[in-house]
Amino acid sequence: MLALAPLTRKHQLCRGFTRGSSSIFSPANFLDQTQEKGLVMAVFGLVFSKLATLLIAPDPLPFCKETPAEIKEYMKILAIFYYPLLYYPLLVCWTLQRPAGYGFGSLLSLSHFCVMVWQKFDCPKTPEIYKYYALLASLPQLVCLAFLCGRFLLLFVKGPMTEEDLDSSYYSKYVKLLLKKRFSAASSGSTDKQSLMKTIVKTVKGYIYVPEQVFRFPLKLAVSAFIAFVAIYHTAMLLVVLVIPTLHIVRAGIDENIAFMLLGFGIVLSDDRMEVVKIVTFYTWLLEVCYLCAMTLSCLVSLVMLMRSMVLHRSNLKEIYKGDIYKVYNHQKTLSPSKPGVVCWMGLTGYQAAIVCLGMVIQTVVFFICFLFLVFLIIIPVFYGRNIIVFQIARKSWPAWVTLILVTVLQHVTAKFAFIKDERGMRDLKNRDSLFLLTYLLFLVNTVAGLIVAIWRVVITALYNILHLGRIDISLLHRTSETYDPAYYYYIQFLRVEVSQNHPVIKAFCSLLLDMMVEGGGVGQKIRDAEEGIQVSRPTRASSSRRIRARWQLLYTLVNNPSLLGCRKHFQSLQISEHVQNGTS
Amino acid sequence: MLALAPLTRKHQLCRGFTRGSSSIFSPANFLDQTQEKGLVMAVFGLVFSKLATLLIAPDPLPFCKETPAEIKEYMKILAIFYYPLLYYPLLVCWTLQRPAGYGFGSLLSLSHFCVMVWQKFDCPKTPEIYKYYALLASLPQLVCLAFLCGRFLLLFVKGPMTEEDLDSSYYSKYVKLLLKKRFSAASSGSTDKQSLMKTIVKTVKGYIYVPEQVFRFPLKLAVSAFIAFVAIYHTAMLLVVLVIPTLHIVRAGIDENIAFMLLGFGIVLSDDRMEVVKIVTFYTWLLEVCYLCAMTLSCLVSLVMLMRSMVLHRSNLKEIYKGDIYKVYNHQKTLSPSKPGVVCWMGLTGYQAAIVCLGMVIQTVVFFICFLFLVFLIIIPVFYGRNIIVFQIARKSWPAWVTLILVTVLQHVTAKFAFIKDERGMRDLKNRDSLFLLTYLLFLVNTVAGLIVAIWRVVITALYNILHLGRIDISLLHRTSETYDPAYYYYIQFLRVEVSQNHPVIKAFCSLLLDMMVEGGGVGQKIRDAEEGIQVSRPTRASSSRRIRARWQLLYTLVNNPSLLGCRKHFQSLQISEHVQNGTS
Repeated sequence: MLALAPLTRKHQLCRGFTRGSSSIFSPANFLDQTQEKGLVMAVFGLVFSKLATLLIAPDPLPFCKETPAEIKEYMKILAIFYYPLLYYPLLVCWTLQRPAGYGFGSLLSLSHFCVMVWQKFDCPKTPEIYKYYALLASLPQLVCLAFLCGRFLLLFVKGPMTEEDLDSSYYSKYVKLLLKKRFSAASSGSTDKQSLMKTIVKTVKGYIYVPEQVFRFPLKLAVSAFIAFVAIYHTAMLLVVLVIPTLHIVRAGIDENIAFMLLGFGIVLSDDRMEVVKIVTFYTWLLEVCYLCAMTLSCLVSLVMLMRSMVLHRSNLKEIYKGDIYKVYNHQKTLSPSKPGVVCWMGLTGYQAAIVCLGMVIQTVVFFICFLFLVFLIIIPVFYGRNIIVFQIARKSWPAWVTLILVTVLQHVTAKFAFIKDERGMRDLKNRDSLFLLTYLLFLVNTVAGLIVAIWRVVITALYNILHLGRIDISLLHRTSETYDPAYYYYIQFLRVEVSQNHPVIKAFCSLLLDMMVEGGGVGQKIRDAEEGIQVSRPTRASSSRRIRARWQLLYTLVNNPSLLGCRKHFQSLQISEHVQNGTS
Repeated sequence: MLALAPLTRKHQLCRGFTRGSSSIFSPANFLDQTQEKGLVMAVFGLVFSKLATLLIAPDPLPFCKETPAEIKEYMKILAIFYYPLLYYPLLVCWTLQRPAGYGFGSLLSLSHFCVMVWQKFDCPKTPEIYKYYALLASLPQLVCLAFLCGRFLLLFVKGPMTEEDLDSSYYSKYVKLLLKKRFSAASSGSTDKQSLMKTIVKTVKGYIYVPEQVFRFPLKLAVSAFIAFVAIYHTAMLLVVLVIPTLHIVRAGIDENIAFMLLGFGIVLSDDRMEVVKIVTFYTWLLEVCYLCAMTLSCLVSLVMLMRSMVLHRSNLKEIYKGDIYKVYNHQKTLSPSKPGVVCWMGLTGYQAAIVCLGMVIQTVVFFICFLFLVFLIIIPVFYGRNIIVFQIARKSWPAWVTLILVTVLQHVTAKFAFIKDERGMRDLKNRDSLFLLTYLLFLVNTVAGLIVAIWRVVITALYNILHLGRIDISLLHRTSETYDPAYYYYIQFLRVEVSQNHPVIKAFCSLLLDMMVEGGGVGQKIRDAEEGIQVSRPTRASSSRRIRARWQLLYTLVNNPSLLGCRKHFQSLQISEHVQNGTS
């Protein structure tokens, strides 16, 4: 712990070291698809893991030991702001894109890593709720730091391997594939009818995320997905650690007194006291198994949903790139950054992590209850002959079930053979009188059958919404009120900002323009800050005809796109001079 | 009860009386928008009310007194089939459309009414769960029977007041309005921007059903809505009757022993035993108030949702009439009756009633829990200073709340003033470096804020789905899996059948065709069974030129619509003769 003090000094040093650069206050360009994503993801993962360990940590801040309970909350709030600052130098070291930065980054991450490993090696067991909890909770941090360390060393030795945003060939490749695809889609066709097998395969494939060569996730979405993954790990661990040790303690404490206690509540499991102890122990063991199964299931569901989300993110982005906004939003919208859009864009990563966590907790609770019902009302009665309540009820009510099934079958059979006539592809009703008679006579039975439909509706709605709770890319409400779902609202606002700033075709166009303009010059003279607006700078050593052509192109563009006029650099100075002229005349 | 025996004999008599007519086996034409709906609705309401009273009745069938518990379930199943049969003659009396039928119907309904009134007058109190339960439960039946009685008498005296389906001017009026509307919609326009007040008024209006002169509900939907209304009454009554008397008994039984009992659980409300009794009595009174409030609220919600459903039914039907299928189904579909469609069409009324009932029960339970929280955790602490847990927690965690609010405000303010530039309507991002920095630094705070978003999401989803549980016209699932919601699936299948058989424009066209054909003849000679397909019958006393013109029209229609060829009467005989010719040659 004490070793963190020099680290904070290093932190200061690092800041001083890079003060000369203008990008020290920019941790990373989040609106970029081509840059090295691993480093940013690792730093975010590191920061999020710290938050997860904060939840039940006795000392939120490293330099304040044995925090009194009164100021613990203040410390936690302080820690929420402290940890991002602590790991900020790691990001800056990379953003500088200089060998010195990479060297310093590798040193910094190595020292962080060593401190943490040494700390865990020194005292692997902690007096918290579970002895290995602190070790398990710091595993993602160790992995992230190790990755950072290795990555920085590699960058230091080999230099940056990815090109800068607009220099990258990714955007032009994307446009090429887009054009190629259009032709291939037009040439193929007429495969409308799909067999059942194909549909199943397609559905399963829709839940498995396979990276595509010519589609790269925006950095913000990649970070969100990684953080969601880390959040699943932490939630699962907390869910196990908070419950299972308690259950173990309870099981160890079961003795013969339990028989008397149960007798007090009027429950007699067996006459023999030892057998009662055995049964109760067995039941608590079953509880534990059910809980672990529920937790595992909710983990799996969350992972599958995360993959499905990524598949849908990709298809949504592609749709919006294509301009098919209606399909994603269900109504037309303009794609420009707005005030709520920017707020949602900033917060999305955190929101998604929190929603995934809460989703997992609720899923675990619901699955646990379902498993309990399954085990105690169906499996135990079948194997041990106890608690046969469900079977007794089912046996009692068989006439009702038989009636319902018979009537339903009757309706389906008559509908098929008596009421529908199919003549040359034209389906129509026949025997209307009998149809009306049956409708009236079976009205009451259908009302009773409706109860089953209603229960099924409740179950399927609850299950569907609980399974999809962790996903922000779909709304849990009806399509007319979709945007009242806060998570979905944030997501579509985020997409608006992301796409308006980060359209690969526009970027490809920009890079083409840049290439054309600096054709004569070296690669190093390319305009770096082209993203802030395409500014026509003076091309060095360009021939006169080339310059004249460029000006004509500019004029042509401006005439056809008058809205671009406002974005031009000297437009405002022109306006000012106009104002001055108006004032004098 | 004994008087029901002659009624069943009357039932037989009525059957014999009308055996000559072909429509005795058709209770009513459910695919008709113009006929007298009140009578059919009343009979359905009567039958449904009987089902509602069956639930906790000691004797399901009237002729079997003091039913033993073993065969009670069989009796209930029998009753489900018996009651529709019992009231069937009432429907038939009306369907015959003859004065004798009306007279007999009024007699029959009067006798049913008298028997029921005499029975209730004889013993208004029953030994069931609540003394006036039987009286309250039979109120809707009495109202329905009184309505039937009056209506039949009126019909008997004045004769039928509505025209038959195709003779009605409703369809031609509908088409006229459709054409008129198109022009008025084209002439007006450019009222896109609406003020907030107008939006609110529009939303409120969307929840209030006002009948329109030129739109009549299909009979099946009207019956469904009425049954849903009756179902709300019965459910509300059962909810009150099953709980409130029990609570009264519990409150009457509270004495000084309650203090000892509470002490056994470690709860000490007061040192004085009399005060403990007072407090517990007060709490049970609060429970009752909460329950009644919850029940009333769920009643109101159900009624509002029912009205909203009717508004949406109307707009959906209009959309599909217009051919705008995509808007209702969210994907293209052909509108022809299918096998599941017919089954859903038959069962819809019952399904909706059951779903409304279950929805109300669930709503009541959820609202009750919400009211309990509100009263015991907020209102009582404010007024009596007890149970101040919530306030203590809120007081403890104020630094967290203040931080969250400050950070959220900071993000909104910076988004508005620092990160968005708005130049001539072109919004774009500026200060990207600071935006990225803020995004990174506030990541952890946003994660914590995300927890609130997640909880809000869970609450709003649960509330939305519980409020809309009773409505079949919207799906509770996401729009890509809408049809997995069974109630919504039944509804859209129902609409397909209804619209394909009951399109007002097609009916207007048919009636125009019929009018043209029988122009020479009297009104009475109009073809009655035109709905089963337009059959070109020989017009009596038609001049030769008229007949030739009709044949040319028929030929023209058939040439332009070859698919109609299969529906022609003598097509099949033609085909047979062709087969024979092929066989011989």
